[in-house]
Amino acid sequence: MNFASDNTAPMHPRILEAIGRANEGTAMPYGNDPLAARVEKRFAELFGRECAVFLVSTGTAANALSIAAACPPWGAVYCHPEAHVDDDECGAPEFYTGGAKLVGVDGRHGKLDAASLDEALGRAGKGTVHHVQPALLSLTNATEAGTVYAPAETAALAEVAHRHGLKVHVDGARFANALAHLGCTAADATWKAGVDILSFGATKNGCMAAEAIVVFDKTLAETLAFRRKRAGHLFSKMRFLAAQMDAYLEGGLWLELARHSNAMATRLAEGLQAIPGAALAHPVEANELFVELPEKAIAATEAAGYRSYRWNGPGTRLLRLVSAWSTKPEDVEGFVKTARSALA
Amino acid sequence: MNFASDNTAPMHPRILEAIGRANEGTAMPYGNDPLAARVEKRFAELFGRECAVFLVSTGTAANALSIAAACPPWGAVYCHPEAHVDDDECGAPEFYTGGAKLVGVDGRHGKLDAASLDEALGRAGKGTVHHVQPALLSLTNATEAGTVYAPAETAALAEVAHRHGLKVHVDGARFANALAHLGCTAADATWKAGVDILSFGATKNGCMAAEAIVVFDKTLAETLAFRRKRAGHLFSKMRFLAAQMDAYLEGGLWLELARHSNAMATRLAEGLQAIPGAALAHPVEANELFVELPEKAIAATEAAGYRSYRWNGPGTRLLRLVSAWSTKPEDVEGFVKTARSALA
Amino acid sequence: MNFASDNTAPMHPRILEAIGRANEGTAMPYGNDPLAARVEKRFAELFGRECAVFLVSTGTAANALSIAAACPPWGAVYCHPEAHVDDDECGAPEFYTGGAKLVGVDGRHGKLDAASLDEALGRAGKGTVHHVQPALLSLTNATEAGTVYAPAETAALAEVAHRHGLKVHVDGARFANALAHLGCTAADATWKAGVDILSFGATKNGCMAAEAIVVFDKTLAETLAFRRKRAGHLFSKMRFLAAQMDAYLEGGLWLELARHSNAMATRLAEGLQAIPGAALAHPVEANELFVELPEKAIAATEAAGYRSYRWNGPGTRLLRLVSAWSTKPEDVEGFVKTARSALA
Amino acid sequence: MNFASDNTAPMHPRILEAIGRANEGTAMPYGNDPLAARVEKRFAELFGRECAVFLVSTGTAANALSIAAACPPWGAVYCHPEAHVDDDECGAPEFYTGGAKLVGVDGRHGKLDAASLDEALGRAGKGTVHHVQPALLSLTNATEAGTVYAPAETAALAEVAHRHGLKVHVDGARFANALAHLGCTAADATWKAGVDILSFGATKNGCMAAEAIVVFDKTLAETLAFRRKRAGHLFSKMRFLAAQMDAYLEGGLWLELARHSNAMATRLAEGLQAIPGAALAHPVEANELFVELPEKAIAATEAAGYRSYRWNGPGTRLLRLVSAWSTKPEDVEGFVKTARSALA
Repeated sequence: MNFASDNTAPMHPRILEAIGRANEGTAMPYGNDPLAARVEKRFAELFGRECAVFLVSTGTAANALSIAAACPPWGAVYCHPEAHVDDDECGAPEFYTGGAKLVGVDGRHGKLDAASLDEALGRAGKGTVHHVQPALLSLTNATEAGTVYAPAETAALAEVAHRHGLKVHVDGARFANALAHLGCTAADATWKAGVDILSFGATKNGCMAAEAIVVFDKTLAETLAFRRKRAGHLFSKMRFLAAQMDAYLEGGLWLELARHSNAMATRLAEGLQAIPGAALAHPVEANELFVELPEKAIAATEAAGYRSYRWNGPGTRLLRLVSAWSTKPEDVEGFVKTARSALA
Repeated sequence: MNFASDNTAPMHPRILEAIGRANEGTAMPYGNDPLAARVEKRFAELFGRECAVFLVSTGTAANALSIAAACPPWGAVYCHPEAHVDDDECGAPEFYTGGAKLVGVDGRHGKLDAASLDEALGRAGKGTVHHVQPALLSLTNATEAGTVYAPAETAALAEVAHRHGLKVHVDGARFANALAHLGCTAADATWKAGVDILSFGATKNGCMAAEAIVVFDKTLAETLAFRRKRAGHLFSKMRFLAAQMDAYLEGGLWLELARHSNAMATRLAEGLQAIPGAALAHPVEANELFVELPEKAIAATEAAGYRSYRWNGPGTRLLRLVSAWSTKPEDVEGFVKTARSALA
Repeated sequence: MNFASDNTAPMHPRILEAIGRANEGTAMPYGNDPLAARVEKRFAELFGRECAVFLVSTGTAANALSIAAACPPWGAVYCHPEAHVDDDECGAPEFYTGGAKLVGVDGRHGKLDAASLDEALGRAGKGTVHHVQPALLSLTNATEAGTVYAPAETAALAEVAHRHGLKVHVDGARFANALAHLGCTAADATWKAGVDILSFGATKNGCMAAEAIVVFDKTLAETLAFRRKRAGHLFSKMRFLAAQMDAYLEGGLWLELARHSNAMATRLAEGLQAIPGAALAHPVEANELFVELPEKAIAATEAAGYRSYRWNGPGTRLLRLVSAWSTKPEDVEGFVKTARSALA
Repeated sequence: MNFASDNTAPMHPRILEAIGRANEGTAMPYGNDPLAARVEKRFAELFGRECAVFLVSTGTAANALSIAAACPPWGAVYCHPEAHVDDDECGAPEFYTGGAKLVGVDGRHGKLDAASLDEALGRAGKGTVHHVQPALLSLTNATEAGTVYAPAETAALAEVAHRHGLKVHVDGARFANALAHLGCTAADATWKAGVDILSFGATKNGCMAAEAIVVFDKTLAETLAFRRKRAGHLFSKMRFLAAQMDAYLEGGLWLELARHSNAMATRLAEGLQAIPGAALAHPVEANELFVELPEKAIAATEAAGYRSYRWNGPGTRLLRLVSAWSTKPEDVEGFVKTARSALA
């Protein structure tokens, strides 16, 4: 009954089992073990091409390392004003880059607007020493608003970015949810649409603590091994990160979990929309919904023990609700019913 | 049959079980869960006093964060020239501090010499803007040489450090092995001997990936929550870090494992010392030994599949051998026998 | 005939003479000379209180060092979106702080709005590890828009800042022009209004290259000597920085020059306002004006060799015109006449 | 009568005159003025080839920027343990690089030993993520010991460095003194001997505050304009830096001054060597000498008002004496006489 965040979910049993299976005998440390090699192969298959893979344990690490690999200390990272990298990582990108600047470019429903980006880059002072230098576009997919960039949208933004000499990063903390919604291939949603480097999330969607930096533009991979070690994100017992990611990808578990999670959010949205006075702030395309509800309805769910997030602070009526791989249909039904009953 | 490093060992079954037990239902993220609170309580009991605890997943993170908390960008960290923080972390302390300097002070068997430290600090230019400012003493216990600082030795160094205005950090990646050797309380070996902040290792000694920064000088704790988050080391599903540490501490498992590991190293040392031409480089007090062996003996163990580390590079005859909680007596016997037989 | 910037002006003859006078015999380096001591005394007199003074040679250095002294790496600096520290220093504050974030709070005519600041700080997430921590308010006086904060305006903003636990910095690259406009004491405009640290500019207003960091909150002074040295901003032959500042302050030269400069801007504004189609974007209170002019008028001044700055890029009609201590009345008259004639 | 440092000297009259001449009318800022262009041309002529030139005002800035341009955050800079960049800049290289490590390689008389360098680089762990990566060799010429690398010595070290993939920097705070001693061309002593980037000092040898970063390997120049600006070292009124350097180079003034300074040091050395109990610690090749003298002799010079530097702290008898362009023969004679008389 916890809709506060998908990171409140446990890990999926198959992830735990995989960790258990990996716990046999000794293994060479720091990624020099067979499981780590297998994970690299899995990613190559998934994306239909060679790519460099760096496993880490948190999304903040994946994002900050990716950004630092693509942006010099005097660089600027263009992102949505609500992007996690700008708002929720306590300045991790600034720390890892050595002081780059994040520049917000707005757009509806959590997505950057390509024309606004083009305009912002046009007046950014490229080549002028007085200004930080545009270096990277960072998109979040699925977005902070629970929406999803279609490949064509990503491609349009990447075209602008590349034309101005920027690289393209995707924060895919919820990449599984995005792809489950899109139904396209992982390649279509990323490198074929111009993405150069991807934070491929797994923690929120059923792993314990495992993320992958997937690098398509190999010039960006050169420094990452050193950056990861120096940041303390190179696990000695790497096999346990690898085991999680291996099981997560095996047999499409990751997409299966995301499909379930998305379906729960959709069902929740449908149920809540029927409530008088309810209003969705954004289309529900992944596993998050933002919905304005009558105070009575919110209070009732809270009293019943449902956890959610009043997005604009205590007393406000815009709720963020996040479903997870482990969300049960009965939790969704219960929430809707509780909210509805309060208004009867 | 892997003596290359204790990080090649699996996790102890009780750690894995604890992870499994923690995998029930939802839990509030980022350390706001009951297990995290329980771990803090365990540390308070273990050290017999209040202390701030920050869980992270790697030893490099624990060290770099601890050092950054105690040393400004223009500070200097005094350590042994062979210290892991100086030699094996790809400059993590420099990254986390924003460019501090590590200054080596030599001493026998991996231990800093208090008189040398006093002398070095005396001519360090404290207060002079041209010089980096002495800020922190960082000891490793057990040391890189497999030796252990007794409380009195730690206290003597800490006295010098404090007298010159430095704080004292202990890299305790193998703190369990040190304490198992000493037989004293954790308090005696740390804050009672003047230690201000401790990297309390667990990964090498039976955990999957879990370390704790234990802060005794509470002025050093103020910035750590922000530093950890910003470095990407705050786990969302913190319960799984906490579960490891909880089980590790419960019922003294950690010391039990370290005692076994130390015993294996001692037995290995005894066996190898009996070989003609063998010479130990350092006293064997924890779970590492450095032993010079005839090339024939080394080659025989390598051929038999035993992994070890030629400390000074390929072709050299000083071996580092590391035992772990999972090292079996028969592995030790086998290694000794193989080495001995080669010379027969 | 250069209205592009006040940094195109030469130094005032009395500054050059002072440099010449300082060039006698040997002097102890790094500020251990009598001139440096005299400058400190002058600042104490000027501000009517003790203050720590750090001389540097550029405004960017003065700002970046001041900001770093008051804002941790995970801190946030609140400033106007057009602030020089955010827009024109290539990320110097981010570099010097080790990755802090600059947060824009808008307001009319280049001045932050106190209510907006209060609101922004209220939702900044103080104490929450996921967010950078509000640490510093940085005002520019005179502003980038050529306006001036009155003491009461500064005090209102400082009150908000202090109430939320922030320190207050003023970028006074054109502090002389601000004070010349206000006619109050230097104390009234700064520490009596809540300013904790000031970048006191002199370069633009008649010096060669000299600025002072003036610290009122002495806790902010503790690290500055080390920060300045480490940044390469501690001059060995400090007497030549001190000589400039000494002559600049002596007998009120600085205010005399600023009054002239301001007067030239005012006269220019008056002359241009009379032109049909001209429109001032902001009140003209210091030595900068922003004026929209007919293209014909602009083109005529450019053709006649007057340098100015088309603020929104080539082809746009909002001009920034900056006067300096050395601007001559005939330059002003000539510019106005040329613009007017073009429309006749 | 100040032998404490060459930075106690005034500027040469021709430098002051040049500053005065530059103080005419307005000039475009930030190096977009004719003098800055002329200085670039002078350097091209001096070194007999194209080179990128970046003017700054302090030697620490020149060194730290040069090093940062050639060494990543996870890099290592190899230098002599007594190098100014390691010992006397409060960690400026670490700050500018974002946390690189300085590694000392010893050698006699302040010069690195090529064989020791080769050996150190051989065991540095190139390519291994656990270790900082060797990136740069930094030599000081003239050295901290007052000796001078001959072109062949520089070339031998550069050969080792380049073979291991490092770039080569020379800290030429006293490059004029080195070249005056060598009598070869500036090209012979630098790029023809393998130097990739040079801190070309002028402050100590007659300027007010002016240094040039001269870049021979143009890949190292790409980031320097941004790094300089971001560090606050791009002067707005650049013409005054350029004027100093222009006059310094014109007509060989710089070498003339250095020859005088060197001659004074040599004469001082000759005079002091004749004193019973005197012993030079290093050959005197530039403008510094290190001489052990009887305490009586030292005390007498101090009592007579001569300033010098007791190199190993108060009470020690190894004096550092530095001559400058402005040192007078009578000061030298007076010092020698005073010392000698004390022993009579």
